Amino acid sequence: MRLVPSWPRSIDDFRPMVSNTAINELQKLAWRLQGLKVLHINATEYGGGVAELLLTQVPLMDDLGLQAHWAVIDADEAFFEITKSVHNAFQGNKDIKWDSTMEEHYFETLRGNLDSMPTGYDVVIVHDPQPMALPVLLGERRKEVGKHWIWRCHIDCADPHPDVWGFVRQFLEPYDAMVFTMKEFVQPDVPADRVLVSAPSIDPTSPKNSALEAVTVQDICRQYHIDVRRPFITQVSRFDPWKDPHGVVRAYQIVKEKFPDVQLLLAGSLAHDDPEGMGIFNEIVSSCTDDRDVYVVSNLQQVGNTTINCFQRAADVVIQKSLREGFGLTVSEAAWKGKPVIGGRAGGITLQIEDGRTGFLVDSVEECAARTIELLEDPERSRTMGETGRELVREQFLTTRELTDWVSLFADVAGS
Amino acid sequence: MRLVPSWPRSIDDFRPMVSNTAINELQKLAWRLQGLKVLHINATEYGGGVAELLLTQVPLMDDLGLQAHWAVIDADEAFFEITKSVHNAFQGNKDIKWDSTMEEHYFETLRGNLDSMPTGYDVVIVHDPQPMALPVLLGERRKEVGKHWIWRCHIDCADPHPDVWGFVRQFLEPYDAMVFTMKEFVQPDVPADRVLVSAPSIDPTSPKNSALEAVTVQDICRQYHIDVRRPFITQVSRFDPWKDPHGVVRAYQIVKEKFPDVQLLLAGSLAHDDPEGMGIFNEIVSSCTDDRDVYVVSNLQQVGNTTINCFQRAADVVIQKSLREGFGLTVSEAAWKGKPVIGGRAGGITLQIEDGRTGFLVDSVEECAARTIELLEDPERSRTMGETGRELVREQFLTTRELTDWVSLFADVAGS
Repeated sequence: MRLVPSWPRSIDDFRPMVSNTAINELQKLAWRLQGLKVLHINATEYGGGVAELLLTQVPLMDDLGLQAHWAVIDADEAFFEITKSVHNAFQGNKDIKWDSTMEEHYFETLRGNLDSMPTGYDVVIVHDPQPMALPVLLGERRKEVGKHWIWRCHIDCADPHPDVWGFVRQFLEPYDAMVFTMKEFVQPDVPADRVLVSAPSIDPTSPKNSALEAVTVQDICRQYHIDVRRPFITQVSRFDPWKDPHGVVRAYQIVKEKFPDVQLLLAGSLAHDDPEGMGIFNEIVSSCTDDRDVYVVSNLQQVGNTTINCFQRAADVVIQKSLREGFGLTVSEAAWKGKPVIGGRAGGITLQIEDGRTGFLVDSVEECAARTIELLEDPERSRTMGETGRELVREQFLTTRELTDWVSLFADVAGS
Repeated sequence: MRLVPSWPRSIDDFRPMVSNTAINELQKLAWRLQGLKVLHINATEYGGGVAELLLTQVPLMDDLGLQAHWAVIDADEAFFEITKSVHNAFQGNKDIKWDSTMEEHYFETLRGNLDSMPTGYDVVIVHDPQPMALPVLLGERRKEVGKHWIWRCHIDCADPHPDVWGFVRQFLEPYDAMVFTMKEFVQPDVPADRVLVSAPSIDPTSPKNSALEAVTVQDICRQYHIDVRRPFITQVSRFDPWKDPHGVVRAYQIVKEKFPDVQLLLAGSLAHDDPEGMGIFNEIVSSCTDDRDVYVVSNLQQVGNTTINCFQRAADVVIQKSLREGFGLTVSEAAWKGKPVIGGRAGGITLQIEDGRTGFLVDSVEECAARTIELLEDPERSRTMGETGRELVREQFLTTRELTDWVSLFADVAGS
């Protein structure tokens, strides 16, 4: 296990986006926990939503007067393949073949992290299944690492694979609290008195979400050959079957019959060690070579945060057609930019879209296409939906709201 | 081995940056090779200069009427560790321990790629040492894959580790031509009659190098907390000892005594599977936590092409303090943006900087600092140097010049 260096941040940067009252309340709440030592543990310091959340929240907890650290576990590729299976099993894939060699490698990897764990924390927050067994494996030494333990599950686990859930279920015991994004994700055998429901959030001050001049958006879109004067729809998501990128392409093709000059951009992170993602990426690129209005880009082409920010701002409609979704940060990111969002009716997306008011929830490719056409035909309605969506995000899905949930929970478990 | 999908590109996009005559000449030259089937093979489709070159050049060769493909080899982490050793050994590290188990795994990996090789090419270009042994291993089947073979070495191999060079030397035999960046990189035992010297190039139409509005540059720098009104120096480079990032920080600290408000940004790519790079990155972050004018960012924080473009455009001075360097694309990138560049006197950097005219070549931290101070003190001179540098790049280091070299070489080897 190793600590991730963090950059100082100030909670005052959020005052222009949320009410002063909310920030003052948060500071007052945190004041009672001055010096509380908090450790977040997750699987990786980069890539994925959890790393993004921690990159913002760890230094802000520090700024609020806590002593917050972030550690990541050491693990090999085989471990991450196993925990990817766990992830898929949580999301309801019942075909996963789960066996004792996987369990053994999982335990062995985490055991290899025990000696390098930092010690002396008041609260330890363990994110997702990868490091979940750590407190069980620590046994008596658990108290040296942290007095109180919280498990934060970011995954849509409304309908998990029973064997895999049975396997992880045994690690819950040492946790003082468990945090889920939605109450629907809480399995009946999770002790209800230790459950907190709290949604993730986006950072409005990050390079992905900060305001940008219109000329910047145009400049950067032009570099990616996107014509901002023509209709433009986008999905920003990993190339993962759960995100249904092929479905988005099919919906776009239907829209194109009505709007021949519509453009589609799929942008997502790809990892070196994600052959499935690379495969999907390549499939889409190959299937769309004849259509110069489809753009498929990824971090491998050095598309970063700022560029994603521009794409979302340039879009007329943002899509997040997931089939399963823990939360889907991109939905709030797009809404924060005043865009109407069409999302798959799945997991955390249903929290973020008020159907018919800030966007649409859809159940099929055809519905996705029909709603996109509806929005492209009525820019005024799109604008209103986008504005309503932005206010929903301001109230419920900015960093400061999540920090308030965390600090309240720390006060509860640490009993201050 | 697998083919990398490519995006259509047009050579006409380069007309505004280079003379019409140069483009017309290139088209005329390529016209004699219509339909020539060309295959590039390298180690990876993303990350690093070679992938960047191929991303631009493969579709442009296509646009010029050739049939150009790009394939990457399948390999595991152990293979890439071995070939990283080869890279370091080429660059003069004599401490590399080279043994027969490394040789065996190298051969075994490439043998595993033989059956999936595409066939029927006129010319195959093999980049760098990773896939270098392919034609030797193919033996008689070599002609089925390609009639003519070219090895392109991008590495500074002026003073290689003798054992490692001895190992790779045996793979040269089947190649009709070998291309090096500088004549100084050509070892005496390379057959001189088959050597071509040709430098790499930058793509002025890519998101990393395209023109941007000043407001865009400011917007994006502000998101990374860089104050464009204060002096700003940057090095864009992997976190690799050969790039001397620690030396850059020390030079900056000397500059800071004279210019207390100077800011330094180090930006570079990091790979998941590059513990050395992660280590250096973390060392620099930790050593600079007290200095809020030092920024260290990477692709892991989703810093992409456009952001790098902004950083280079915002800089007063761009540094590339390499100790060894095959070419160093960032030198031409910065010069193309009209910036004076201070480069380590190493390999391909010496091609790109005319010492005292477009920037400075330096041999030490102290010299790097002194030259930076000189440039910060004289903005008018910096501007002139930047403009001179831009014209040097236009003449010698844009994509179109490299394509002309390639097409001429194809004509030579394929005998059309």
